[in-house]
Amino acid sequence: MKSDIDHLMKDANLDSLLVIGPAGHNPYMTYFTGLVHVTRGYLLKKRDHSPVLFHRSMERDEAASTDLQIKNLDDYDPIKLLEEAGGDQIQADAMLLQRIFKEFDVRGRVGLYGKTEIGPHYATLHLVGETLPDVELVGEASSRSVLTRARTTKDEDEIARIRKMGEITSTVVADVAGFLTSHQVKDGVLVDRQGEVLTVGEVKRRINLWLAMRGAENPEGTIFAIGRDAGVPHSAGTDDDLVPIGKPIVFDIYPCEAGGGYFHDFTRTWCLGYAPDEVQEVYEDVLDVFETVYKALKPNTPCRDYQVMTCEMFEEKGHPTVLNNPKTKEGYVHSLAHGVGLAVHEGPYFSHVESNKDQLLPGSVITHEPGLYYPDRELGVRIEDTVWVHPDGTLEILAEYPKDLVLKM
Amino acid sequence: MKSDIDHLMKDANLDSLLVIGPAGHNPYMTYFTGLVHVTRGYLLKKRDHSPVLFHRSMERDEAASTDLQIKNLDDYDPIKLLEEAGGDQIQADAMLLQRIFKEFDVRGRVGLYGKTEIGPHYATLHLVGETLPDVELVGEASSRSVLTRARTTKDEDEIARIRKMGEITSTVVADVAGFLTSHQVKDGVLVDRQGEVLTVGEVKRRINLWLAMRGAENPEGTIFAIGRDAGVPHSAGTDDDLVPIGKPIVFDIYPCEAGGGYFHDFTRTWCLGYAPDEVQEVYEDVLDVFETVYKALKPNTPCRDYQVMTCEMFEEKGHPTVLNNPKTKEGYVHSLAHGVGLAVHEGPYFSHVESNKDQLLPGSVITHEPGLYYPDRELGVRIEDTVWVHPDGTLEILAEYPKDLVLKM
Repeated sequence: MKSDIDHLMKDANLDSLLVIGPAGHNPYMTYFTGLVHVTRGYLLKKRDHSPVLFHRSMERDEAASTDLQIKNLDDYDPIKLLEEAGGDQIQADAMLLQRIFKEFDVRGRVGLYGKTEIGPHYATLHLVGETLPDVELVGEASSRSVLTRARTTKDEDEIARIRKMGEITSTVVADVAGFLTSHQVKDGVLVDRQGEVLTVGEVKRRINLWLAMRGAENPEGTIFAIGRDAGVPHSAGTDDDLVPIGKPIVFDIYPCEAGGGYFHDFTRTWCLGYAPDEVQEVYEDVLDVFETVYKALKPNTPCRDYQVMTCEMFEEKGHPTVLNNPKTKEGYVHSLAHGVGLAVHEGPYFSHVESNKDQLLPGSVITHEPGLYYPDRELGVRIEDTVWVHPDGTLEILAEYPKDLVLKM
Repeated sequence: MKSDIDHLMKDANLDSLLVIGPAGHNPYMTYFTGLVHVTRGYLLKKRDHSPVLFHRSMERDEAASTDLQIKNLDDYDPIKLLEEAGGDQIQADAMLLQRIFKEFDVRGRVGLYGKTEIGPHYATLHLVGETLPDVELVGEASSRSVLTRARTTKDEDEIARIRKMGEITSTVVADVAGFLTSHQVKDGVLVDRQGEVLTVGEVKRRINLWLAMRGAENPEGTIFAIGRDAGVPHSAGTDDDLVPIGKPIVFDIYPCEAGGGYFHDFTRTWCLGYAPDEVQEVYEDVLDVFETVYKALKPNTPCRDYQVMTCEMFEEKGHPTVLNNPKTKEGYVHSLAHGVGLAVHEGPYFSHVESNKDQLLPGSVITHEPGLYYPDRELGVRIEDTVWVHPDGTLEILAEYPKDLVLKM
C-alpha cells in the first residue's frame, strides 16, 4: 500500500518516481491524486519526500483539492520555453522537465509511470536522458514495478471502495438476471411482451444504464458472449446476436467508480431455461476447481503455485491446459487470477512461468476465475469472484452471488 | 483522414507507424480497429502497405472482426521468449518487437503512437532502438504527428458519428435544463418537491444516467461549475455544492460513444432565475466574440489568426488575455478552439504561438469556445459549440442549442 512506497523504492534502487499524464483513467496518477479533474501534469516523488503535483493554471483549484504539494507549470513559462526551443514542442517539454529536475535536485535512478501518449513522451524522455548525465530513466516491467507492488496490497479505504463497487456490480447482475428471465421464449430465443426479439446489444445498453444509475462507469465494456463467442475468453459477444435458451452465456462485468477509480471484476456463466448435459458437465468441472483451489489459497505463498494446481486439476479431468500446451486454444487457456484495484488487471499476477515471483500477500484483492473453453463445441464456462485477503490472512469474497448455471425462464 | 496517411508519412519521412496499446480509449489504435475488445496489442503500418494488427489468442475473434490483416502474438511464443530473456519481461518484449520488425522487414524511421503505460514501453523501445541500428524510433509532438494530422480531417462516417453524439449531448443538456427548472427555490438554492436540496453531485449523476440511456459514455466527467469554480476554466465543480439562483453556472459536457469512440464537446453558461448585471455584461461580451469570430472563420487559413483575433476583441472590450499576458488568470485565459474526434482535444490547435502552423482545413471538426473568467468576482462564462468545416468550406454547428443565459424558474 501507499505507506510501502519508500521502502519499495529503496529495494528497487530508485531515487525518484515520475508519474505522467491525467488523473483520470491513469491508475498511477489517480493513486496519488484521487479522482480530480487534472487532465495533464506530472507527479514527482523523491524517496523519503512527499510527492509534488505539477499542474496547469486552468486546473489549479482541482490540484489544490488533492492535499498534495502542488506547483503550477505556468511558473516555468512554457510559451517562452517553446520560443527558446524554436517551436519544437518535444524540445520545450524536455527543457521543462530538465528545469523541474534541477529545481528539485532530481538525480540517480528515476522510475517512469503513467498511462499516456507514448510517442511524444518517449521522445521527450529520450532527450532528457541524453542531456542529464546524472539521471537514469528507468521503465520497470508492469508486473514488477514499485507502484505495481505498492498497489498490490490495499488499505481500508481502498477495500471499502472496491467493496462498494462489488455491491453495485452484483445488484446490476441481479438486474440483468431479472431482465432476462422476465422475457418469453419464441423459436428458442428471448422476446419481450410485444414479441420483439432481445439482442446482446440491448442487454449491454441496459447494463451501462443500470451501472450509471448507481454511480459506476463501464470504460472497458462488458463481456456477454454466447455459444462460440463464450468459447473465446475475451470475445465480448456480438451486439446483433439474439439471446437463446439452452446455450452457455459467459457474462463478465468489470465496472469502476465514475471518473476512473476502483474496479470490481465478476463473471457468471448462465444457461437460460435449461443446460445441455455437455455444458452441465463442463460447468461442474469448473465449479469443482473453483471451490477446491479457493480453499487452498493461503497468504504468503507463490501465486504461480495456484495456477499450476488449477492446470493439474483440469488435466486430471481430461482438459488440455496452458501448462502442457502453452498455445492451446481449448480447455483452460488463461491465468487463474489477477489483482484488481485502480486497474481491472493489476498485480499480483498468476502466470505459471518460473520467473513469476509474485506472492499472495495479506491485503491484496484478487480475482479467482477458472474457466474452460471449447469454441468448436460452441461452449465456454467461467466463474469469477473478487476476493480480499484480509490482513490476518483469511479470505473473503467481496460480493457473494449465487452460482446457478441455469436461470429458470 | 485515413486516406491521407501514406502521403503524410512521406511528408514526415516516416517509413512505418507502430501503434501500441488497447483498442478502447486509445484514439490511435481505435482509429484503425474501431471499437473492439482488443485490450493489448500492436498495430504496424508500413508506408504504402495495409496495417497489420498483432493480437493475443484470447482476442482472436475480436481482432478478426476488424477487417485488418491480423497476426497472433502467440505465434512468436512469448513464454519461450520470456525464458530466453531470463524472466526479464522488458527484454522479452523487446525480442518480440525485434522479431516482428525482422519478419515484416521494418527499417528506417518508425513513428510511435498509442496511449499506454509509459514505463515498460519506454524501456522496451529504448532497448529495441539500441539493438536495431537500421531502425530509428520517432516520437512526434502530438500537435504535429502524422496520425494527428490524418485525424484532423474527418470522413463522412466520422462526421455522422460525431453528429449523433451531438444529438445525444443536446438532448441531455435539455434534460438537465428541464430537471433544474422543475425545482423550487428556497433560501436562494434549488430544492425538490420534498424540500430536499439539490447538489452538483446529484446533477452529475443524472447526467451520467441520461448519457448511458442514450448509448454514450462520459469518461472525462462533466464540468458543472458555479460561482468561483466557474471562474477557473477546468474546475469541474464541487459535488457538495448546492445549486443557487442568480449565479453563473458553466456547464461543459463532452461525452463519447460507449467503449471509447467519438466525442462531442459543448458548453453553455446558465443563471437560474435571473442574471446579475455584472454576469449579463460579461456574457454579452463573450456572445459578441463568439458570433463575430464564428462569422470570420474561413477554411485554409491559419488557426492561430482566430486566437489572435479573439484576444484582440476581448482586449478592446477591456479584458486581459493570454496574448498580452500569457500568465493571466483573469479574462480570456485559454485557446479559442481545438479539434474533436476520437479524443476530446485533438488537432487542429488554436494556440497563438508563432510555431503553431495548424490550418483550418475543410473536413475538420472543431470546438468554438470563447470565454471570460474572473474567479475573484465568482464569475465565469463560456459558450461552446462543435463545428464541422464542410468539404466545400462552409461551416455547420453540429448540434444547435439555444444560447439563453437565464433559465426561468
